[in-house]
Order: sequence, then structure tokens, then C-alpha cells
Amino acid sequence: MERFRDQIAAELDRVVEFWLKHSHDKEYGGFFTCLGREGQVYDELKYVWLQGRQVWMYCRLYRTVERFRRPEILEAAVAGGEFLRSHAWAPPLGGSQKCAFCLTRDGRAVKVQRTIFSECFYVLAMDELARVTGEQRHQVEAERVMDLIVHWARVDPSGLGRPEMPGDIPVNSMAIPMMLLCLVEQLTEGRASLAEKYSELGRWCVQRTLQHIQRDGAAILEHVSEEGEELPGCQGRHQNPGHALEAGWFLLQHAVRQGDEELKKTAVEKFMLLPFQTGWDQQHGGLLYFQDVDGCCPTQLEWSMKLWWPHCEALIAFLMAYCQTRDPALLDRFSQVYDYTFSHFPDAEQGEWFGYLTQQGSLALDLKGGPFKGCFHVPRCLYMCEQLLDGLLGKSQAPSPSRVTQACRGIR
Amino acid sequence: MERFRDQIAAELDRVVEFWLKHSHDKEYGGFFTCLGREGQVYDELKYVWLQGRQVWMYCRLYRTVERFRRPEILEAAVAGGEFLRSHAWAPPLGGSQKCAFCLTRDGRAVKVQRTIFSECFYVLAMDELARVTGEQRHQVEAERVMDLIVHWARVDPSGLGRPEMPGDIPVNSMAIPMMLLCLVEQLTEGRASLAEKYSELGRWCVQRTLQHIQRDGAAILEHVSEEGEELPGCQGRHQNPGHALEAGWFLLQHAVRQGDEELKKTAVEKFMLLPFQTGWDQQHGGLLYFQDVDGCCPTQLEWSMKLWWPHCEALIAFLMAYCQTRDPALLDRFSQVYDYTFSHFPDAEQGEWFGYLTQQGSLALDLKGGPFKGCFHVPRCLYMCEQLLDGLLGKSQAPSPSRVTQACRGIR
Repeated sequence: MERFRDQIAAELDRVVEFWLKHSHDKEYGGFFTCLGREGQVYDELKYVWLQGRQVWMYCRLYRTVERFRRPEILEAAVAGGEFLRSHAWAPPLGGSQKCAFCLTRDGRAVKVQRTIFSECFYVLAMDELARVTGEQRHQVEAERVMDLIVHWARVDPSGLGRPEMPGDIPVNSMAIPMMLLCLVEQLTEGRASLAEKYSELGRWCVQRTLQHIQRDGAAILEHVSEEGEELPGCQGRHQNPGHALEAGWFLLQHAVRQGDEELKKTAVEKFMLLPFQTGWDQQHGGLLYFQDVDGCCPTQLEWSMKLWWPHCEALIAFLMAYCQTRDPALLDRFSQVYDYTFSHFPDAEQGEWFGYLTQQGSLALDLKGGPFKGCFHVPRCLYMCEQLLDGLLGKSQAPSPSRVTQACRGIR
Repeated sequence: MERFRDQIAAELDRVVEFWLKHSHDKEYGGFFTCLGREGQVYDELKYVWLQGRQVWMYCRLYRTVERFRRPEILEAAVAGGEFLRSHAWAPPLGGSQKCAFCLTRDGRAVKVQRTIFSECFYVLAMDELARVTGEQRHQVEAERVMDLIVHWARVDPSGLGRPEMPGDIPVNSMAIPMMLLCLVEQLTEGRASLAEKYSELGRWCVQRTLQHIQRDGAAILEHVSEEGEELPGCQGRHQNPGHALEAGWFLLQHAVRQGDEELKKTAVEKFMLLPFQTGWDQQHGGLLYFQDVDGCCPTQLEWSMKLWWPHCEALIAFLMAYCQTRDPALLDRFSQVYDYTFSHFPDAEQGEWFGYLTQQGSLALDLKGGPFKGCFHVPRCLYMCEQLLDGLLGKSQAPSPSRVTQACRGIR
């Protein structure tokens, strides 16, 4: 356990250094995330998901880990937050307000997605920024956009701009309730009034996530009907083991806070052990990216590749599950994922992790960041695992939010 | 040459049999294209690109190849054409008319893409259907939709429904002019008045395609500015060798018809030899799917995979180039691609070709058809190569259109 803790903490330091060194745009604010093997910027586009995620990550590290309470981390996070507030919102289309998916270096909207995720990562950024800076306006903005997202997800999706088509039946995609559950956990931490405000939403998220347990409890399916029934075709049979594992630790975290023993058990058994059992590649090791529950060949070209982030989610999930249950079998799973992950993804020479391997485990893409890989899954995983291991080892806890807020006020 | 011809003709027979046996939806019309290794339907969705392409392919084979003038081929094509006419058009959005991208089995629109390609393959289908059935209404429909596409591409793209964003500068993507050039060749064959109508459009397509020759003639880039300048970032450096080769034979075919020797030379040297030189994998053989002209790692996860269709395009390109030039180096290229292709893609057991291999050439996806693979690239390649080889060998020509039309009238 000590060995895990020390290796993980050292790796977190190396990973954070990579982003500090290569990703800051000192001219316009915000972050470059298209970074090559050595950290060189190969594209200046700024993806809003990744801008929001990096602001969140920097703020969280600054707020809760003593050794990351460094001015340059806070300054970059604040500049990233201002960049988002000034540029993330695309020109309104037909009266509806949407965040862009990506921006030019100087912040002009390039593309808008008809989903909720740019806004979700924007909320994550604003909320954590409010906590670290103590600035109320960021929290007001986080709540405003959260309410907009909830409106799209639960009341009326027309503001997303997706045309309604007669053959396009409404779907419960797991990404939506699990993302909203993640935001509920973020927004309500230490805030009783918000915990009250979002408690019904939390229950809705849990119920909508649990609907993805299908086939008499034998499979997690990524897309089900609004009524929780299996859908026809590839969409209905689609499985994403990394996503299920991530939903697993979101659910477990929520269950711990709620003291819900039944939900704890479901989170571990159905959303962790089950997807691991089917998703782990027995021949080559590592988690497959996509699967078809009936064993058909997925149509996604990358289905058999090994991506970094499902492994990050699996590490968090199994370590959190072990903390909660002290079941040694869960620590074994953690250790198994750890061995594959640390022997395949980190780049000892240039820092950060590679993201994309072939099924056999060799390097398929040598970039460190791209349109979907930024300063998020790797440091979040290392940070959470370090915190969990500190808890297991009885080490010193994170500084209190108030201390962090004070320190931050001193700097600004 | 005889050996090539016989193997290709035999393979064309096997491939056509696969689609005849497995893809026809006798209940609703149209074609299943999501077919597994043995031809089993693993999803009933109908992708409009592939519906249009299969109608075109069946009609072209019926019209021009004696042994395919079979009632079941014509009947399936006619049923596919009626399915398209009845169902391809999605409910209008904000007054603008668009074909869907995919449909339910019974023809309800599921999704609409904000591009021109569904409509392009619809035109291809309607025009060839008009030729084979002699029905004027199909030709009228082909021209009506062609004019709509040209309006989107050259006058006003707003009907596509893509929001204009301040950071989204207009781009000349090679797919647009090369697709339109393909349609011009299709629509004008044997029709003097249409050749007149579309002659200026043909010149525009050629000019817009030639703008993709960049870096002082040393590279074909997939996306350039409206003014033909290189674009920044990944988009600007993106290369798609298979697409360049396909554009090459479209250009060469056009140049032959126009008697344009300069364009012939450019088509062969810049759009065939150049992308082959950089796109052929020296270590493992086969054509890479995507490249970055500066050698950065592409961000597309599938960049290093070997797909069936670039190999199909390369076979047509080099054989057509050889027919035109009788340069033995071009026959060598054809032979080189032929050896890789025939030793990797065809499935001797179940028929049709696999579509998706790893960089090393092993099977990555075992499906025979999917959202982007249908009855098109493989049979078109084999059909065109057979025709070209027949020409080289001085064999009998295709039956005349009038004979085909007569035969078809007899059936209907």
C-alpha cells in the first residue's frame, strides 16, 4: 500500500509538471491541449470540455493538496476560468444559449455540439473555481448553468438544437445521469442548502443510472429506452466498460454520502466487477474500449483499442470499493489494473501518459493531449488514489477549505 | 493480365452473390447493410448513403454487364429506388429539405447529417435507375436534387443547417468537388444537353480539386482555404491517401473525356503516385488511412488502420492510369496493390471482403457491412477493373444501353 501511494504521488507530480510546462497559453488564457509526445503544441484549437476540466483539476489540487498550493497553478486556473466565461458561450442560435465545443486560440467559437457536456465541464470548472477563489459570481454562474442543463435533460431538450426525427426515439444514455450525478456531488459538497435543492435530482440520476443494469443483472448496457427497456440494434447492445466503472465510483461515492448500503453493493457488484469481468482482455490484458453484449463485432473502428481513461476509472473504482468494503479481492483487482496501467501508459521520458494503444498494447497514437485527452483523467485518478491510500494508511488529511480560501485571498 | 481479369471477374461474381443473398429487405424494400461475417443482419438501420450506392451498383451492373442482367438484380434496385424516393427525405427543418443519414427498417428518419453526401448518393441512384428503367421521372428527380446540391455547395450552404460560427472559416474540403465531379460524369454520360448544362460545373470541380495540390506540388492536402491556401492545425495538415487516389481516377476519367493531356498528367502524378508514395506502409504493406503532412501523429484513432476502400480506389486508379499511358511502372503499382488487397481483404469462406484491418494487417472488425461499408466500393472496383482489363485485352464490350432498356421494359 505504501508502495502504491508513493509511486502514485510521484507520478501525479510528474503529470502536473507536464501540463504546467506545456499547456498554458499566457497570451490569451486558457490551455493548449493538443500536445505531442514531447509536449509541443501541434494544434492551437481549444476544446471547451478540456478547458473546463483543467480549470477544475488545477483548482481541486490547489484547494485540497498542500504541495500543489502554488501561485502558478491558481493563476492558470483563474486565467482559464476567465477565458471560459469570456469565450465559451457561442453566438446564440435561434435564441438558445449553448457553449461551443471548440474555440480558436483567441476564443472564437468553431463548433457547437448538440449535447450537454461542454456545459457540464463548464459547471465543474466554475464551482471549483468559486471554492478556491471564494468568488461568489463563479458559484452563481455554476448554478445558473446547472439549472439550464437540468432543464435540457429533464424538461425540454429543444434548446440543444437537435432536430426531432420520427425514427429517433428518446434514449436514456448512461452518460447523462452519471454526469449529472457527478455535478450533484460537486455542487453539494459542504453546502446544506444546495444538497437540499439537488437531492431529488440525485435520486433521479441514481434511478436513471440503475436502469442500465440489464439482462437480469448480467450486463450494463450503455443505452436503454426512457422506460429502462433494452433497445434494438447496435445501440441497444453497446457496452463501454470504462464508462460503467466510472459510473460505479460515482454511485459508490453517492451511496457513501447517503449511507445507502444497498446502493453501495450494487455499485460494486454491477458497475465494477461485472464490466471488469467482461471487459478485461484475457489474452492481452487491459480493458477493451467497446463491446457488444451479444458478441457481435462493434462497428466502432477503435473498439478493441486500449485507452488510458477506462484504466484510470478502474483504478479509482476498485480502490474506493476496497476502502469501503476491505474486501481483498477488490484490492487484487486494483493491483491487476495498476500493473497493466503503469507498465503501458506512462511516458517515463517526457512525462504524462500515452492515451491510445492497440489491442496488443503497443503505441497507436503518441500524442499526450488531443481533442478528448487533456489534464483530467490521469491527474484525477492519481489524485483520488493518493487521497484514498492516505485514508487507508491513516496519513494526514487535506487542508481545510477555509485555509485554502484564505491562502488564495492572500495571493489575489 | 488474363490472370488478373479472371480472378477479378470471379471475385465480382462472389461479391455480388453475397449482397443478393443477404442484403435484400423483401418486406420494406431497400437493403440491410449491417451484415456480419456470415451475412447475418446485426442491425436493421438503413443508411441512406449505402441505399443509394447499392441501387447505383445494381443498376450499373444490370445495364452494362451481360451476366448481371438478371431480374432479381433489377427488381431489388427498383425496390431500393422506391424505398429511397418514399423515405429518404426527412421531415423539413425550418423549411429546408434534406435527406436523412439513416432510417429505421420501415423508413422513418433517425438522423440527418449537415453535409451533401446523402443527397449525392441519392442522385447517383436516381440517374442510373433512370438509365436502366427508362423512366423519365427518375432522371427529373436526379437533376432536381443535383441542382439543390450545387446550390448548397456554390451559392448558399444555409440549407444544410450548419450554424455559422465566428471561428469556423469556410473550407474547401476535397470531398465536395470530387463528389460533384463524379456526379457530373454520371449525369452527362451520353447526354449532350446535360454535358452542356454541367460543363462549367465540371471545370469548377477540377479547379477546386487541383487547389489541394500543396507544398509546391509535393503533397495533396484534404482541406484548404476557399482561396486554396494551406489551413492551420491538424485540419490543414490532414491527408487521406485513399481519397486522393479516388480523386485521381475521377480527374483522369474527366480528362480523358475532355481530351485534356495536362490534366491527365496531373491526375496520375499528383493524385496517384504522390499519395501512394507517402501513404503506402513500407513496413507492413497496405495504405495508411490518414496521415499528417508534417509527420505529427493524427488525432483520429484509426489513422494507421488498413481499410478496404483506399485499396479499391488504388486498384482502379493505377489500372486506369496504365490504360491511358501504358507506362509499365503503373501496372507494377497496380500489381503491388492487388497482391496486398487479394491476400488480405477477401473472405474466401463466406464471401465479400473484410473492411477493417490493423496496421499489421490482421482482422480488426469482422463485419462485411456497416454504417459506412455496403455494396459499393468492392463491386465498383472489381467491375471497373474488369472493364478496364477487357479493354486492354480487346474483349467484348458491354451491351448497348438500348438493349438493356428494352430488356428491362420486358421485365417490368
